[in-house]
Amino acid sequence: MATRIHGPRDIRFEEVPDPRIKAPTDAIIKVHTACICGSDLWPYRGEDETTKAHTIGHEALGVVTEVGSEVRSFAEGDFVVVPFDHCDNTCVHCAAGMHSACENFGITTSGQAEYARVTQAEGSLVKTDGVPDDDLIPSLMALSDVMATGWHAAVAAGVREGGTAVVVGDGAVGLCGVLAASQMGASTVIAMSRHASRQDIARRFGATHVVEERGEDGAAAVRDILGGVGGDAVLECVGNGPAFEQAFLVARPGATVGFVGVPHGAEAPLTTMFGSNIGLAGGIAPVRRYLPDLLELVMTRQIEPGLVFDSRLPLSEVAEGYRQMDEREAIKVLLTP
Amino acid sequence: MATRIHGPRDIRFEEVPDPRIKAPTDAIIKVHTACICGSDLWPYRGEDETTKAHTIGHEALGVVTEVGSEVRSFAEGDFVVVPFDHCDNTCVHCAAGMHSACENFGITTSGQAEYARVTQAEGSLVKTDGVPDDDLIPSLMALSDVMATGWHAAVAAGVREGGTAVVVGDGAVGLCGVLAASQMGASTVIAMSRHASRQDIARRFGATHVVEERGEDGAAAVRDILGGVGGDAVLECVGNGPAFEQAFLVARPGATVGFVGVPHGAEAPLTTMFGSNIGLAGGIAPVRRYLPDLLELVMTRQIEPGLVFDSRLPLSEVAEGYRQMDEREAIKVLLTP
Repeated sequence: MATRIHGPRDIRFEEVPDPRIKAPTDAIIKVHTACICGSDLWPYRGEDETTKAHTIGHEALGVVTEVGSEVRSFAEGDFVVVPFDHCDNTCVHCAAGMHSACENFGITTSGQAEYARVTQAEGSLVKTDGVPDDDLIPSLMALSDVMATGWHAAVAAGVREGGTAVVVGDGAVGLCGVLAASQMGASTVIAMSRHASRQDIARRFGATHVVEERGEDGAAAVRDILGGVGGDAVLECVGNGPAFEQAFLVARPGATVGFVGVPHGAEAPLTTMFGSNIGLAGGIAPVRRYLPDLLELVMTRQIEPGLVFDSRLPLSEVAEGYRQMDEREAIKVLLTP
Repeated sequence: MATRIHGPRDIRFEEVPDPRIKAPTDAIIKVHTACICGSDLWPYRGEDETTKAHTIGHEALGVVTEVGSEVRSFAEGDFVVVPFDHCDNTCVHCAAGMHSACENFGITTSGQAEYARVTQAEGSLVKTDGVPDDDLIPSLMALSDVMATGWHAAVAAGVREGGTAVVVGDGAVGLCGVLAASQMGASTVIAMSRHASRQDIARRFGATHVVEERGEDGAAAVRDILGGVGGDAVLECVGNGPAFEQAFLVARPGATVGFVGVPHGAEAPLTTMFGSNIGLAGGIAPVRRYLPDLLELVMTRQIEPGLVFDSRLPLSEVAEGYRQMDEREAIKVLLTP
């Protein structure tokens, strides 16, 4: 059984053949916990075309059931975090910390399912010491993508100890960006959000301020907080045009906008960037790079990114989960097979 | 007497009123040496419109003839380097090293003239100890813009000791970018150039390799040199569309493209940037930030950026200088009143 998307707003949990080992570097995971990503909403909303029904979901926690012959460090029964982007962790790009550009790059394609195949299992997976306590599950789930992606936004934006950070986007990634900036020691972390429940999580994640206004008004509010200038580091955690515009409005000269949302209708404002020396950096998060450190932070209960999950459903009700996220009733939906 | 542009390819050295002190922060400079910038060619070629004749030229070395009442550190007779971008060197942006975003930003507007006005003289000017030796003049002239701009490209691109750098553009800024990357300790510095005279200067400036090919062939040649990957740091020193495309082609995942040429018809390739985590940073060089260090390097003859000047003309023949640069007969033209 797996979730498949057939077209806009047509999500079905249905019978499909379970994935099998195809290459000696593969592993098969029995999914313990899955979830829905903001980027899954692009095809759900029809903004990305679905030409043929296919399985969906790229985030998973699970237990290894089978490994290919070249997978040495994992065996049946291991509880693992699956980074959404698979990598060998040895190529020249992985060695440079750019695991998301791995020469053997792969991606989880049936995360919202009973079983998922992980290509490059040896390089990608990270296991826990036994089955984790229940209360840690949501936070471990967040490491598969959203927490690592928020962390990457903060890294790309150049958040530094004592500096200031502004986070555009109050989705799960944006909230994790707040948590990342706070963990990295930013003295001021401004969350741009107009939703009370998301503001609450932002504050729990370390936001020192919340700005509800948008556009120029939002930029003015940010400058009021920051002594007349924009943020040293700006985390763009949406990917669409308005979010990009907002991000550049709240960046001070010399700042960097870190972007991690798949660009949809966004443009880089070259003239502004040139005139004000505002950089743009980021992209697909190299999850595996950050995973060991983030795992340690979760296991020692120093961070609780799992707070972004405000809805839990059985996997069989995945379609309802999409609806909740599409209508912004839920920040992020946890799914249990 | 000053150079004025009246329209495309219409450059005249003619009688105009000399500039005068307008604000207490101004200084007037008797121009000792001037030059023509690649960016002056945009209006010369009609790619930037000239709606009304105006003085032109933003680079100058000179001797102070008069200062406003708030200028304390300079007096008549001081020999000074004039950064093309004027700044107070005290505001919040200057304090952050972003002098080109100074709250009191100004720009030299009659550099190719007998006299020029410098706004924010106190914060902008840097003086030498007496009149410099003749052989140092071209290199000091280069500090007004082109060497500082090449340096900024290298800073923006994140050139680091032991890393690799690729420089797109073999104009004076690109050549100075080569010099900057080399000075910063890059282990491999690749100059992309197909002109023998420019290649020679690139090598004297520290280029370890020259690549003549362009487009995908050029990128393949770069990868051959760099063990199969693109550059860690890429300096985009032109500003047009083809140069931008080339820069992203030769950048490895995780690299940063540092751009310092005024964008003309260029676009940031967001999808490539996202997919490969290639950043883009740069803009108008904060010349004053780099000036003290660069001045020291020139005065102690550790660098000789003046080699980019391969043509010298009297200021009265400025139109011929524009022609030489437009037709790429000269890399950069030095002008003497």
